[in-house]
Amino acid sequence: MTVSFLEDLAVGQTFASGRLRVDGEGIKRFAAEFDPQPFHLDERAARATLFRGLAASGWHTAALTMRLLVESEFRPAGGFIGASMDALRWPRPVRPGDELRLEIVILAIQPSKSKPGQGMVKMRVTTLNQADKAVQEYVANIVVLARRREEPARRCT
Amino acid sequence: MTVSFLEDLAVGQTFASGRLRVDGEGIKRFAAEFDPQPFHLDERAARATLFRGLAASGWHTAALTMRLLVESEFRPAGGFIGASMDALRWPRPVRPGDELRLEIVILAIQPSKSKPGQGMVKMRVTTLNQADKAVQEYVANIVVLARRREEPARRCT
Repeated sequence: MTVSFLEDLAVGQTFASGRLRVDGEGIKRFAAEFDPQPFHLDERAARATLFRGLAASGWHTAALTMRLLVESEFRPAGGFIGASMDALRWPRPVRPGDELRLEIVILAIQPSKSKPGQGMVKMRVTTLNQADKAVQEYVANIVVLARRREEPARRCT
Repeated sequence: MTVSFLEDLAVGQTFASGRLRVDGEGIKRFAAEFDPQPFHLDERAARATLFRGLAASGWHTAALTMRLLVESEFRPAGGFIGASMDALRWPRPVRPGDELRLEIVILAIQPSKSKPGQGMVKMRVTTLNQADKAVQEYVANIVVLARRREEPARRCT
């Protein structure tokens, strides 16, 4: 897996990820620490809610997506440093037993004017379940390093 | 703490949260599971990165924010069910020892036309550190239940 510098990326480029299985225990453990609400903690209580059954916290899905991203084909130089995130949606719940994977597409590349050694890359990250249905989607702006530029040749007079 | 139904909310209303202290061990534990990158895992390795020191994963901050939200003054009827999220930003890093708290403000309230028992509430959630500096900000759209409407009186003839 090679590292992508800013100059190596192109709009429309896509990257895939591995797969990650979500289980009920993991859903409840995350929820107990970060999102203790009945629909994320208990199968029985979840049935009476809008979710109609146990569902992962959206932030759990986001965290699992980050894990898949870090281990995906896309290795931006400098690592994944998210500056901002837009249009984060959870179109359907993540259920125990779901197997998640990512589709990553580069939407825009903007070299920095003030910091010539880096730039901003806009990418859409879609998290799909085993039925190829989207369970999460967002557009992220990340900071990506440019190739180290050669120092200009010194002229000695 | 009383539950807020859709009709109880007003644009401009604000809510506060408790406080939550972040420590280095928690930062590394979250990162090892969900965001295994040097700047979230190891003080020494983090010094050579854009972060110049250990910093929490943005998704860790988002998860801690959810915990503070669930335990905040704001108790929407039906719980916190996020439909979507916009303008998620991390203006500065969360460091070991930081103490986080939230400011929540209601931006818009939209009763559902198709589902009369519920509506959408837009709120800005700002996560601040002990120096009152924002470390995270987003605008969320959540589903909030309306008060159970009385059945129309039956007329018996």
